[in-house]
Amino acid sequence: MGELYRGFERELLVPLWTQIGDLMPMAPQSKAQPHLWRWDQLLPLAERAGELVPVGRGGERRAIALANPGLGGKPFAAPTLWAAIQYLNPGEDAPVHRHTQNAFRFVIEGEGVWTVVDGDPVAMRRGDFLPQPGWNWHGHHNSSDRPMAWLDGLDIPFQYFTDATFFEFGPDEVETREAPHHSRSERLWSHPGLRPLSLIRPTPATPLLAYRWEHTDRALAEQLALEAEGYDVTVEPGHAAVRFTNPATGGDVMPTLRAEFHRLAPDTATTPVREVGASVYQIFEGEGEVSVAGRKWQTSRGDLFVVPSWQPLAIETSTGLDLFRFSDAPIIERLELHRGRVEEANR
Amino acid sequence: MGELYRGFERELLVPLWTQIGDLMPMAPQSKAQPHLWRWDQLLPLAERAGELVPVGRGGERRAIALANPGLGGKPFAAPTLWAAIQYLNPGEDAPVHRHTQNAFRFVIEGEGVWTVVDGDPVAMRRGDFLPQPGWNWHGHHNSSDRPMAWLDGLDIPFQYFTDATFFEFGPDEVETREAPHHSRSERLWSHPGLRPLSLIRPTPATPLLAYRWEHTDRALAEQLALEAEGYDVTVEPGHAAVRFTNPATGGDVMPTLRAEFHRLAPDTATTPVREVGASVYQIFEGEGEVSVAGRKWQTSRGDLFVVPSWQPLAIETSTGLDLFRFSDAPIIERLELHRGRVEEANR
Amino acid sequence: MGELYRGFERELLVPLWTQIGDLMPMAPQSKAQPHLWRWDQLLPLAERAGELVPVGRGGERRAIALANPGLGGKPFAAPTLWAAIQYLNPGEDAPVHRHTQNAFRFVIEGEGVWTVVDGDPVAMRRGDFLPQPGWNWHGHHNSSDRPMAWLDGLDIPFQYFTDATFFEFGPDEVETREAPHHSRSERLWSHPGLRPLSLIRPTPATPLLAYRWEHTDRALAEQLALEAEGYDVTVEPGHAAVRFTNPATGGDVMPTLRAEFHRLAPDTATTPVREVGASVYQIFEGEGEVSVAGRKWQTSRGDLFVVPSWQPLAIETSTGLDLFRFSDAPIIERLELHRGRVEEANR
Amino acid sequence: MGELYRGFERELLVPLWTQIGDLMPMAPQSKAQPHLWRWDQLLPLAERAGELVPVGRGGERRAIALANPGLGGKPFAAPTLWAAIQYLNPGEDAPVHRHTQNAFRFVIEGEGVWTVVDGDPVAMRRGDFLPQPGWNWHGHHNSSDRPMAWLDGLDIPFQYFTDATFFEFGPDEVETREAPHHSRSERLWSHPGLRPLSLIRPTPATPLLAYRWEHTDRALAEQLALEAEGYDVTVEPGHAAVRFTNPATGGDVMPTLRAEFHRLAPDTATTPVREVGASVYQIFEGEGEVSVAGRKWQTSRGDLFVVPSWQPLAIETSTGLDLFRFSDAPIIERLELHRGRVEEANR
Repeated sequence: MGELYRGFERELLVPLWTQIGDLMPMAPQSKAQPHLWRWDQLLPLAERAGELVPVGRGGERRAIALANPGLGGKPFAAPTLWAAIQYLNPGEDAPVHRHTQNAFRFVIEGEGVWTVVDGDPVAMRRGDFLPQPGWNWHGHHNSSDRPMAWLDGLDIPFQYFTDATFFEFGPDEVETREAPHHSRSERLWSHPGLRPLSLIRPTPATPLLAYRWEHTDRALAEQLALEAEGYDVTVEPGHAAVRFTNPATGGDVMPTLRAEFHRLAPDTATTPVREVGASVYQIFEGEGEVSVAGRKWQTSRGDLFVVPSWQPLAIETSTGLDLFRFSDAPIIERLELHRGRVEEANR
Repeated sequence: MGELYRGFERELLVPLWTQIGDLMPMAPQSKAQPHLWRWDQLLPLAERAGELVPVGRGGERRAIALANPGLGGKPFAAPTLWAAIQYLNPGEDAPVHRHTQNAFRFVIEGEGVWTVVDGDPVAMRRGDFLPQPGWNWHGHHNSSDRPMAWLDGLDIPFQYFTDATFFEFGPDEVETREAPHHSRSERLWSHPGLRPLSLIRPTPATPLLAYRWEHTDRALAEQLALEAEGYDVTVEPGHAAVRFTNPATGGDVMPTLRAEFHRLAPDTATTPVREVGASVYQIFEGEGEVSVAGRKWQTSRGDLFVVPSWQPLAIETSTGLDLFRFSDAPIIERLELHRGRVEEANR
Repeated sequence: MGELYRGFERELLVPLWTQIGDLMPMAPQSKAQPHLWRWDQLLPLAERAGELVPVGRGGERRAIALANPGLGGKPFAAPTLWAAIQYLNPGEDAPVHRHTQNAFRFVIEGEGVWTVVDGDPVAMRRGDFLPQPGWNWHGHHNSSDRPMAWLDGLDIPFQYFTDATFFEFGPDEVETREAPHHSRSERLWSHPGLRPLSLIRPTPATPLLAYRWEHTDRALAEQLALEAEGYDVTVEPGHAAVRFTNPATGGDVMPTLRAEFHRLAPDTATTPVREVGASVYQIFEGEGEVSVAGRKWQTSRGDLFVVPSWQPLAIETSTGLDLFRFSDAPIIERLELHRGRVEEANR
Repeated sequence: MGELYRGFERELLVPLWTQIGDLMPMAPQSKAQPHLWRWDQLLPLAERAGELVPVGRGGERRAIALANPGLGGKPFAAPTLWAAIQYLNPGEDAPVHRHTQNAFRFVIEGEGVWTVVDGDPVAMRRGDFLPQPGWNWHGHHNSSDRPMAWLDGLDIPFQYFTDATFFEFGPDEVETREAPHHSRSERLWSHPGLRPLSLIRPTPATPLLAYRWEHTDRALAEQLALEAEGYDVTVEPGHAAVRFTNPATGGDVMPTLRAEFHRLAPDTATTPVREVGASVYQIFEGEGEVSVAGRKWQTSRGDLFVVPSWQPLAIETSTGLDLFRFSDAPIIERLELHRGRVEEANR
């Protein structure tokens, strides 16, 4: 028998029967762990990096990534997802580049930075969700007199795993320092249900580059108001939610990333749910107790936590709680790996 | 030979060779004619009908349809399209019913009527586009002290032709006399790029029941402003346009009807175009000269005109011109009958 | 009141309230009638036309169309569908042309004609279904020493109604007189589940130009054999059926026409069904009693009958019965007018 | 600075600027290496395992996986792909189970094993491609008096990475020992362009469980014959290829795996190509020189080789060469990561 196994090794072979328990478990057993990163720990480190680490060509971005404790020190929040705090000092430019990785920014606080996407300057303000679909040129500049920090989300781990990544350098400085309140993309696309006739073909990623807080906030408030008026429009009692979508298709903003915003009314507890695929949440406002697979944390503004695939998540709040969420759900769904399929087959 | 033709007749047969010129022309030869109906002729007749003709069960609606002069007196604006002026007096109810026909209202002037769609009261105001997808219960009530007239568009001729129509009576009065400024559908769906998570499945027709003038007006104004700033975002110079779309799919609002709004800047002349499929236009504001297949009309607010399939259309304006348009383009496109296909095949 | 109606007439207007009963019935009330044409009446007339009427440029085809008794003498089997017997003498060419109308041939008996589609000669033999998607060049030639008759099905009435038809003349004679047993399209596409890698993009209509009887016959026989073995694979007991599909999409062979083949085992009676949309059936083999909306006919080989929209159809046979069917179902389904939608909404 | 990095480490953070070169290269830099496994080395090891290692519950399968030398000893042929030799002795059963992983068998030689899929016994013979979509119950039994080996392909590494895997045990023995020449799935689905009317809904994976060599062989032979007759139907001169597709959609057989068969005529050299995504090839017949990113191998029947993402591949043969290929292309394409997108964006 030993000779057989030595033969396997020599010929670069591995038998299934020694691996099957790990590789093919009864249900997903993510190596990734539930974990919480506290904003009041993250922000000072980002500020310190702002003092010590230059931003510029080569390193490209002053971004500090969450490294899931189960993933061997790699800068991956979950197997498929990248989440980082990016920090930009007054007057700094994050140089222009493009890459196949899909990205977005979500702003927990502050303002004064414009991200310039293919020449279109997009203001970043608290509560805004700013998608950055793959292969668009983009750089950032801080036109204010204060530093600014925000959340970057990308599919870096997924594209790294599938060996699909391309990257190109652009100019060291952004092509325009215009600082308009609204981007051109919004002026074209941010009108509900209306599409410009000159741009009628569907694109695989959203042409709308800014989803403003005022719209998100109002949509969530309306859901809770309608619920109070007796209409069944929330996910569950006290739990409003919206998905950010591509106005040209109604689907997810980007082919690999889903983004949502959830609002829990005061004194709400969610039903525990588990889903195939990983999510990262950031507390936007309020306080609450988050429980993932038995781990529990008291959370407040800016805190980030990871829910690995198939781990049950429950949230409780007395103050009310606003949460931003992003996930790899489009990967799971487009490849028919979502939970529904398993459940339907089980019937 | 005569005997042969008598045999055909007896057996209910018709030879192709006597019919082919009419049935299979080199290019579409619509029986429908280009025609203009003037608002200042239509409105007085509608007002007179308001005095003489009751609205209620049986007749259902006080609607007066455009009858294309080429279509043998049938109440069809074009072979596939129905367009009518509907008129409702103060305090009147148009009784509740539902039908498979897809419908919409477009408001050229006035306000004070609510259309109640599956229990959701939708205010109607100047410039609003109000889709009414097939098989929803709906009735209207005029809560104001003034009569109101508007444009109804439907696919009645198409569903009549394809024998696809179902119809049911509901209550004689609308189920609610609430008169909110915004419908529940808007409170859920009229947030750009945002979808309620509880309503995530695509529906074949739009869940958004009101596209408000303020959004349409702003979207068009932004296109012309961006054009003035040097960006190529209009259909052609001085010609801005938006399509009304289903926010759950990015596609047309209803499976058989397309709706658009066009704005021509002052001193603009459009390039003549022709398309497979029929359109009806209503002048919303401004004045201009419309030319369809050699027919020319000076037009102003409220005037309606029909462009039959494959007839060239050109419009000129010195004052600037706002036009609402609806068409059967989804029928043509979903069945692969659009012009692009012919042209591509010709290359 | 009379003045009002005269005003309507003068201004080319028609009120809904006088029309609604006809235009918007409770359920489809087709003008078309159920009707049967007997092959033993049709064929002699086609033969006589073969003696008297030349085939050639202008008339284009010696095709004799079914004229539904409810449709005012028009050569339309149903509002949307054209069905005709085409007849070609030995040595004759039906000249080359192309048109946007989608077409097919179905062969009830005989052989010896090749239809040449964009230069690809396609043999026609008993039982074969031969689609002819819109805008392909095509002509036919009879290379045998016997005349041949077959069924042509097209969407002429639909494209006539929607004003979507384009037509072009090609050469008077077909470009090749090769007479291969299989067309090139079959050599590329008639391998189950296999697609040529060089032709991987979906096309709106099928690239496969011949569906041979041997395959259809075997597929139906297998369904009945599997049923006999205890598996639930038929439409209903004793009733096997296949749909002809585009191998590049799995969908209907053409955007406006559906084609199916049904086989009833001896001593089978179908459950009455009614559907939105019209169908034409041809008896291929066997005898049976057909009942449509109360009309009943004893039918045999070659007989053709029409089932208008929403008319109940039932079939009984003691000998067993093979039926070819085509319909406008893709129009109904792509435009969301199918019965399922109504029924779901009724729940 | 050291303190900053210690802070990062303590808080489970990793800066982008130290990682970007590895994580975001200019073009895909797969950790996987091009590698060849020789059949005459693999088969004896499988035979030896057949003598020493039992097959049964727990280990489930006597499968020996290719372990790419760049992937740290894991049993992964490529980051996303599993490829293994499975071996079954006369009279043995591979016990019944199901899993979300998509799988297939490809038979390089031999016969006598039936794989029983949801109760349907599917014979396995040389040249056959036998898909096994996720979550179907399946087991194998060897009814012959000779052992049999074949290639198993799965998406195990991908579903392991995305934490999407579910697994269930079934009976220890297959539910039927029937050994029909054709499975029920073939009797229903293996008729070109024909779909059973009772099974008309699209399924995410193919309902056809066997793609027989006789069809594949003929499709390839026809392509080369048509090329010789002057038609442009091959991928490139002398290079015929088919894709195995879902007859209900025309798309790939399974949501994560693509399978193709390629035939090179004698004295053919392919143009070097590179693609995003990984492939595994097996030589089915003939001999040839394979070159991947500068590595070159003389190959013959049964040899397996891996082409990592974006590595150029070229093949030359004087004898003619038949190759089976499978890849993760559906993952890449459904998530819009294919090369075309990059190239179009570059224009």
